[in-house]
Order: sequence, then C-alpha cells, then structure tokens
Amino acid sequence: MDNAVYSSVETPAVLVDLDIAERNISRFQAYCDEHGLKLRPHIKTHKLPRLARFQIGKGAVGITCQKLSEADAMTEGAGIDDVLITYNLIGEAKRERLRALAGRVRLSVVADSAAVVDDLSAAMDGSGHQLTVLVECDTGARRCGVPTPEAAAELSGRIASSPNLRFGGLMTYPPVGGTSAVQDFMTRAKTLIETFGTPVETITSGGSPDMWRAHEAPVVTEYRPGTYVYNDRSLVERGICGFDDCALNVLATVVSVPDPHRAVIDAGSKVLTSDLLGLTGHGYVVGRPDIAVDSLSEEHGRLVSQEPIGLKVGDRVRIVPNHACVVANMLDAVVLTRGAEVLGYEPVAARGKVW
Amino acid sequence: MDNAVYSSVETPAVLVDLDIAERNISRFQAYCDEHGLKLRPHIKTHKLPRLARFQIGKGAVGITCQKLSEADAMTEGAGIDDVLITYNLIGEAKRERLRALAGRVRLSVVADSAAVVDDLSAAMDGSGHQLTVLVECDTGARRCGVPTPEAAAELSGRIASSPNLRFGGLMTYPPVGGTSAVQDFMTRAKTLIETFGTPVETITSGGSPDMWRAHEAPVVTEYRPGTYVYNDRSLVERGICGFDDCALNVLATVVSVPDPHRAVIDAGSKVLTSDLLGLTGHGYVVGRPDIAVDSLSEEHGRLVSQEPIGLKVGDRVRIVPNHACVVANMLDAVVLTRGAEVLGYEPVAARGKVW
Repeated sequence: MDNAVYSSVETPAVLVDLDIAERNISRFQAYCDEHGLKLRPHIKTHKLPRLARFQIGKGAVGITCQKLSEADAMTEGAGIDDVLITYNLIGEAKRERLRALAGRVRLSVVADSAAVVDDLSAAMDGSGHQLTVLVECDTGARRCGVPTPEAAAELSGRIASSPNLRFGGLMTYPPVGGTSAVQDFMTRAKTLIETFGTPVETITSGGSPDMWRAHEAPVVTEYRPGTYVYNDRSLVERGICGFDDCALNVLATVVSVPDPHRAVIDAGSKVLTSDLLGLTGHGYVVGRPDIAVDSLSEEHGRLVSQEPIGLKVGDRVRIVPNHACVVANMLDAVVLTRGAEVLGYEPVAARGKVW
Repeated sequence: MDNAVYSSVETPAVLVDLDIAERNISRFQAYCDEHGLKLRPHIKTHKLPRLARFQIGKGAVGITCQKLSEADAMTEGAGIDDVLITYNLIGEAKRERLRALAGRVRLSVVADSAAVVDDLSAAMDGSGHQLTVLVECDTGARRCGVPTPEAAAELSGRIASSPNLRFGGLMTYPPVGGTSAVQDFMTRAKTLIETFGTPVETITSGGSPDMWRAHEAPVVTEYRPGTYVYNDRSLVERGICGFDDCALNVLATVVSVPDPHRAVIDAGSKVLTSDLLGLTGHGYVVGRPDIAVDSLSEEHGRLVSQEPIGLKVGDRVRIVPNHACVVANMLDAVVLTRGAEVLGYEPVAARGKVW
C-alpha cells in the first residue's frame, strides 16, 4: 500500500472505515425492511455505541448483547433503550446489575433450562419490573438451547407461570446453513406453544453467514447479525461479501525482511488473534493475494510469498482479519476512518466485557 | 470443584495463584544461579509490575519486553530500571518514547537489519544517551533475525560504528528443541565478532519449553523465559511441569447442561483465546481429565465427556488454558489468590500494549 496513507497512525492499529460500515448497515437494513424482518444487530462485533446508534437510526429495533457488562457499556448515556441479552444469566453476582439494567432499558433475556428460569425469577424479585424471557432453542449448533420444540414449549410454560417473568418468544443461534432447520424447529415450537393459548411474540435468529437467506425462514420475526457491520475474511471466503466490503482492517508495519520471500510485521495474535474459522492463514493482505500470513506469535506476524515479497522495513500493509469480532476486542481503541481520511481514535466501549 | 471456593469472584475470571507463581520464579532462579546464567524474564506472560519486582528481588538482572508501551507500563513508578526490548523498533512515532525510556532506565534493544540500526541511530540523535543494541539472530525459528553468524558479525560492526549506539551482544528466540543450534550459531558468531576485537558482552536466549536445558548451550550468558512464571497446558503436555505448577487458571460457571455429556461454560475465546499451540482442545478442566473443551465461541466454552458430565447449571470449574500469556492479555484485571484465599483484583498493567 501507499505508505503515506494513514501515516499519522501508529501501528499496529485496528482501522474501521465508517463509510463501509455504514454502507453494510444500510444494505442489510434495506433487506430486512423488504422482507418485513425486524433487525436487532449484535454489538459484539463493533462494541461501539456510535455504531449502535447508527444502526438504530437506520431502523434497527434495538441491540443484542451477550453479557450484562456489554449492555451496560452500550447503553449508559448512549440513548439506546432496547436490549436483548442472548445469554443464560445466572448467579448472585449478576442480580443487582440485571435489575438495574431492567429498570433502565426495555430488556429481554433468554433461558434454556428450568434452573436459569428460576434464577431469573428470583433475581427480579422485589425489583418492581417484569423481565421478558425468550426460550433459547438448539437448531443444530449444539451449544446452548433446548433440544426439541416440545422442550421449548414446556419451558415457555414455566416462564409464563414464574413470578416477575413474562414469556417473550423463541431465540436461536443456528449453525451455518441452518436456515431450514430454524424454520422447521420454530414452526413446530410456535404451534405447540400457541396450542396452550400463549402468543409467541418474537422468533429471533442470527448469524451473518446466512443473513441473506433469512427470508427463507419466514417464521422468524427478527434477525441478529453481528459481523455484517464490518465483514471479514471468513465472510468473503463464504461469498457473502467482497474485500471492499470489509470495514475493519489491521494496519501493520514491516519490521523485518529476513529473506526475499518472507517479511515480519508488528501485528501478531495480540491484534489479529488466532481465530481461523476454518481458514488457512491469519488474514488477507490487501492487494497481495500472493502473500500468506502463515504464522503468528504474540507480536509478530509472518508473511510469506512464493513470489519475491517486495516489501522493505518500514513499509505498511493492511490486513483483513479472519474474524472481525475478536479483533475488535483486542485493543482499547480503534481508529475511525472514511477512506483515506483519519477521523481519530474511538474507545471500544464494550471491549473485554465478559461479565 | 467445590463451588464455595472463590465464591466471591464473579465469572469468568482469570485467577493467578501467587504461591505457585513465586515458587515457579524461585525454582528457575535457583537453576540459573546454579549454572551461572543471568535471568531476564519476559514480562509478556504476567504483565504485572508486582511480579516483575518479585522476579528482580529473587535475582533477575532486569526484564524483557516486546514493545515500548509494555516497557513503559512495567517501569513507570515500578522501581524497575533495566529493560531489554527484543523487538525491532522502527518509525517516527516510536522515537520520542524510545528516547524517554532510554533516559529513564538502562535500556537495550535489538536489530536484525541495517535499516533498523540506522533508524535507531537516527532516533537517538540529540538525546544525549547511547543505546545498547544487540543483534537478533535466527537460530531456526524463521521469524526475525539475521540468518547466519557471518551476517551477525557484519551487523555488529554497523552497530558499533553508528552514532549514538553501542553493540551489546547477540539475542535469539530459538525454536523448541533449538538449544544445540543456539550453541553452534552463537559460538561461531562470537568468535567472528571477537576476531574484530569487539567484545560480545551478552548472549541471550529464551523460551520456557527448553528452559531446563539452557545450560546445554554454555555460550549463552542470559535467559529470557516468559511462560515459566505461570506455566500452562502446553508446558504440561511437553513434560516441563505438572498441572499443580500452573499458577494461572480460568474460573468459569456452567450456564447450560443441554445433554448428559455436554455442558457450556461462560468462558469462551474472549478469555481462553483460540491459541492451540499444537494441542487438541482449549484447556484442561482441573480434576476432570475425562472432559474436553472441544469448542469455543466468544462467550461460550463447550465441555464434552464420554462419561456422564456430572455438572449442573451454576457449578464452577477451573481451566488450565493452553497458553497462559495470551489469556493474561484478555481481561483488564486478574484475581490474585494464595491457594483458596482471594487477595483481590490486580490490574494487568501491560495488557494490550502493542505499540
């Protein structure tokens, strides 16, 4: 790349091009609008209140978070008032924060067992708020979630009859390629629950890899993509977008060129992370498809090419990482840009929020 | 594990047992003392000034850092005054910090090319300080480093004749199993350089996997292990230590038990990271060798066992991660313990310092 571009930015750095991010947001919002789907983006990718506000401004119904501490970081003073936490929240330590958040925003959470439902009910006791709880369903990812529509119906009944809780619907995070499994599971679960006279207000699914197929599961009322805001190499490899649609890049400097086919950059796993997502190599060097990022240590990334690598010490490269979400979690701040223009550093408000 | 232990700690958390860490530090210091080796621990593993001070108190000659920002975080107000940065530092943006650090502590850095040497010389211009520069040598890791003893000798001459710099010796980060390659390379390079009448003050090598074999390369004067302070699953698998020697654990809570052979915990790649270091699975569940941590997403860790998993929602587990250094980089603070006693949160001063 031209070393004069971003020359004011110290490396390694995580660059976020707002033009591209905003285009990605608008494009999928238009798709959701066309198909009558509510969009509730997962903030785990950007972790930035300003982009969450942009998403809501374009039409998103609220945000998705994975943890209470993420929700706190995203909503405190940010003007965001509708949050779904797609995580089983349990334990004494989380109760006070759960009640405080429920008093501040329109909050929904999930549960996939009686133990979690009972814990949530106890947590809300005396809070004066009723908490909306969705049943998490396993539509094939084999992570969390009740295993069958029958189990979903049973747990919905427990939620509906628990003090301080109201049943809000069904939630799933399907495996890639799981759209039709979602349709089948959710249709059956909805029918069962409605048989008991309980309305199923929301059926929410997610995942950027299948986001353009969301309409193929018409039972779903709401979609929760995360990565779509930035995109990454894993989504390019799946054919979901092009490298020009990748809003998050890592800017790095060549610190060593030990032989004509190898260069070492100052970005290692502390920036790019070791996430492979099934790919080979640790990222795409923009403009250099001949180069492989073939190994990382914490502060070094090794670039190799069968061609003469043609880089010298001090040159800069931009890398599209395999997985944008985890890269956004590594540094305290990202550098916002619009094309070649550098806007400045933006603290990653929800970085490292695992509670 | 007994859920009452560490019950005051919110999960997920990174626990650091100071008793074990101090024992690890003392044990390797004794080995170095026995063999007349200087010990200069790499702080990339713990990133905590208090443990660096303990290491120096036991006899370490100083610390090793990878980046200027790490060195700043480790030395500001910490009473540490001898730092080796084993990284090619280049570029305008780093010059001011380099000069400031060189004015504050006894600083050595490395270089593996004329370009880096010239940049360092220019950086120190007018600072009033002479910077000690070691030549980084590639003894088989194929990352950075000059490729041959002859190239090391040539670069030592350039350092010695550059304004503001003095030649400090030779540095390498060898591959695992590279002890004899280090001995061969360094002996040859030392001989060549001394032929020119230049003394080779320091020959420094590193790596925890081979630390107990350091004496088998007697040409080496100084050793720079990092992971040894905490140890991890990768070192246990290599036979370097036992799980009882692992000072860093991840404490997690079971949030879902979707079937009798599977449980999901609240620690995913945002705490455990995706580093495999050649291993299968993402950590060792203490006391449960039957369990595999077979997949991670950002906030979920999946535990599977061919036995009945015998865990329920709310249970806690401790996990020895594959790679301690990268786990210590994920959260803003670790929880210090001595056995079952919880001492409190300690900010990870050098977390995320990549500049």
